[in-house]
Amino acid sequence: MAIPSQSPILGVLGGGQLGRMLIQSAINYNQDIHILDPDPNAPCKDLSQRFTVGSLKDFDTVYAFGHGCDVITVEIESVNTEALEKLQREGKKVYPQPDILSLIKDKRKQKQFYQLNGIPTADFILTSDKAEVIHHADFLPAVNKLGKEGYDGRGVQVLRSEADLDKAFDAPGLLEKLIDFDKEIAVTVARNEAGDLIAYPAVECAFHPTANLVEFLFAPAEISKEVAEKAEEIAKDVILKLGMVGILAVEMFVTKDGEVLVNEVAPRPHNSGHHTIEANYTSQFEQHLRSVMNWPLGNPDLRCPAAMINLLGENGFTGPVLVEGQEEALAEQGVYIHLYGKKITKPFRKMGHVTVVSDTVAGLKEKAQRIKELIKIKSIS
Amino acid sequence: MAIPSQSPILGVLGGGQLGRMLIQSAINYNQDIHILDPDPNAPCKDLSQRFTVGSLKDFDTVYAFGHGCDVITVEIESVNTEALEKLQREGKKVYPQPDILSLIKDKRKQKQFYQLNGIPTADFILTSDKAEVIHHADFLPAVNKLGKEGYDGRGVQVLRSEADLDKAFDAPGLLEKLIDFDKEIAVTVARNEAGDLIAYPAVECAFHPTANLVEFLFAPAEISKEVAEKAEEIAKDVILKLGMVGILAVEMFVTKDGEVLVNEVAPRPHNSGHHTIEANYTSQFEQHLRSVMNWPLGNPDLRCPAAMINLLGENGFTGPVLVEGQEEALAEQGVYIHLYGKKITKPFRKMGHVTVVSDTVAGLKEKAQRIKELIKIKSIS
Repeated sequence: MAIPSQSPILGVLGGGQLGRMLIQSAINYNQDIHILDPDPNAPCKDLSQRFTVGSLKDFDTVYAFGHGCDVITVEIESVNTEALEKLQREGKKVYPQPDILSLIKDKRKQKQFYQLNGIPTADFILTSDKAEVIHHADFLPAVNKLGKEGYDGRGVQVLRSEADLDKAFDAPGLLEKLIDFDKEIAVTVARNEAGDLIAYPAVECAFHPTANLVEFLFAPAEISKEVAEKAEEIAKDVILKLGMVGILAVEMFVTKDGEVLVNEVAPRPHNSGHHTIEANYTSQFEQHLRSVMNWPLGNPDLRCPAAMINLLGENGFTGPVLVEGQEEALAEQGVYIHLYGKKITKPFRKMGHVTVVSDTVAGLKEKAQRIKELIKIKSIS
Repeated sequence: MAIPSQSPILGVLGGGQLGRMLIQSAINYNQDIHILDPDPNAPCKDLSQRFTVGSLKDFDTVYAFGHGCDVITVEIESVNTEALEKLQREGKKVYPQPDILSLIKDKRKQKQFYQLNGIPTADFILTSDKAEVIHHADFLPAVNKLGKEGYDGRGVQVLRSEADLDKAFDAPGLLEKLIDFDKEIAVTVARNEAGDLIAYPAVECAFHPTANLVEFLFAPAEISKEVAEKAEEIAKDVILKLGMVGILAVEMFVTKDGEVLVNEVAPRPHNSGHHTIEANYTSQFEQHLRSVMNWPLGNPDLRCPAAMINLLGENGFTGPVLVEGQEEALAEQGVYIHLYGKKITKPFRKMGHVTVVSDTVAGLKEKAQRIKELIKIKSIS
């Protein structure tokens, strides 16, 4: 007997770890999820009501996939936004909205948006090729970013002096003043169709020295009340000025003068919010679900201090996954392991994360460091 | 390219809500789960690496299913234990052990086990048919239980006086002295192969006046330190004397004199532990996984006071599910809805549960009552 599903189907472009953790939340609400991903072994395989293998960048594939859904969202920005625009015109709900995705996935447009809307951000110059970067040697030290396709540390590099100019990107990008910041923080905000708006408490990010990936995250950020309020205000301002529905992670620099500058945003669940699964009343994944489905938003408050450690593939190992130290880590108190189900590890690939919760901030950094040294993602071959 | 799975496959007999919440935990560890369930639309459908439709009571079906797994567990007691015994003899790990399942699923054997092992429990008489119950009229008021196949209120009835004798079960069962208890509590314990043993703090159960199902649960139980310690000791004693590996929910009566008597046990995740998902450091589902996989056990402590409300199908409604009041409940703080994905509701069917967490015990009961009145499981037809 076929029983019609009463609830709308949520389609997700991308079936990686973010989709996987979204599914874990969606199960609680009987929310059917359809996934599109080019990898037949993507982390969401076996866990959704429909798993379609196909390109996220191909118009016809994305359009056909979206046609079978009622609400469409993304877990990665590099998707075919033209197909999403057509779906939106035809009455599908697409959150984040396709025009906002287009804006955000082009870092040049993103920076111009901040400038136009009075959102504090580092000074920058748009550059169309390597020659133009070289022409602006007086702007160094600067961060040279590719306009499109940058992801997880790719497409971003620091040019400290003229000696570095030779490696400048020879494609449309930008030069951004290198900020001598005190801290990097992130505030996640979420907004639903009804206009409800919430902000998570600011978290502090510690980056891997070479891989340009978040290595540790601490919640709450050790910042003054003034800086925390300023950061929250700015993050809310960004999502409101974008007019976006969904969840938005706003990464910011806190300068040594206490100034807060927007670095980049991600219009989806983000690495800087993974700790919310155990450490906050409402996880970022449930919040994303609530916002795109236009349900009332949940309480973003922290339940307790937490640290998050990214489990990156160890350098020197490529192949089928071997997790070292899992048992030892499980024997620790307040340690939550999340493995992403990726079949193959590569150097610095995001293979999982660990959240450590504690009643107090004291000792949290040391414990996070200890857990990080315990769990290693290697290869069995 | 086929990549061999490095981790053992966990087979679960039963694909209902308990299997579903186990899967939500198992995802975090890349733990592959195979499910066997007779219902092609069972709650675990679409969420496991393999979902086999078949009888849990048929020897060949259970044996063939178990053959493809490394570790086998259950989410329901009514399974073919002969097949599990054969699998165990052939080297598969089966937890809880088949002989313990056989003992527990026969309430007559369960009571005899308590008696033989000095575990405090209400006095009882074994009865083989209705005539024998009538013969023991002087034992009333008593609870008349069927030996086998009782579940969720079926197979259990109170015989208060001789006038009730006509409804006595005409099959092997027992008569148990009706306990004039002060409270019903439950302590969940877990034990792994290595012998690690943990106990969750006692919870208090409030039963539905007519359906004989848990309606509300409160954690922690409002009992004295002495009673709490006695209850924990008894629960640990039961799992140790059984020699069981896995998770065991021990339901107990607290008498008006502060005596603690074991009522029944369940060798699997249980309704009395649902709040642990949000309210304890380690959920009962993760704990079950850890225990049957012989991983180190997790911290069972409460993070904060909590209440759990069963969402039962409303009386008078049978058919495709309609959830009323979900949005209003989502607008409340600290409210966690879990729907089980069952396609059809029936009166008093367990369709989901809600956990309410709070910083303090005060107000928790009122809030639980309010949420219960808000969310109603009805039918669309």
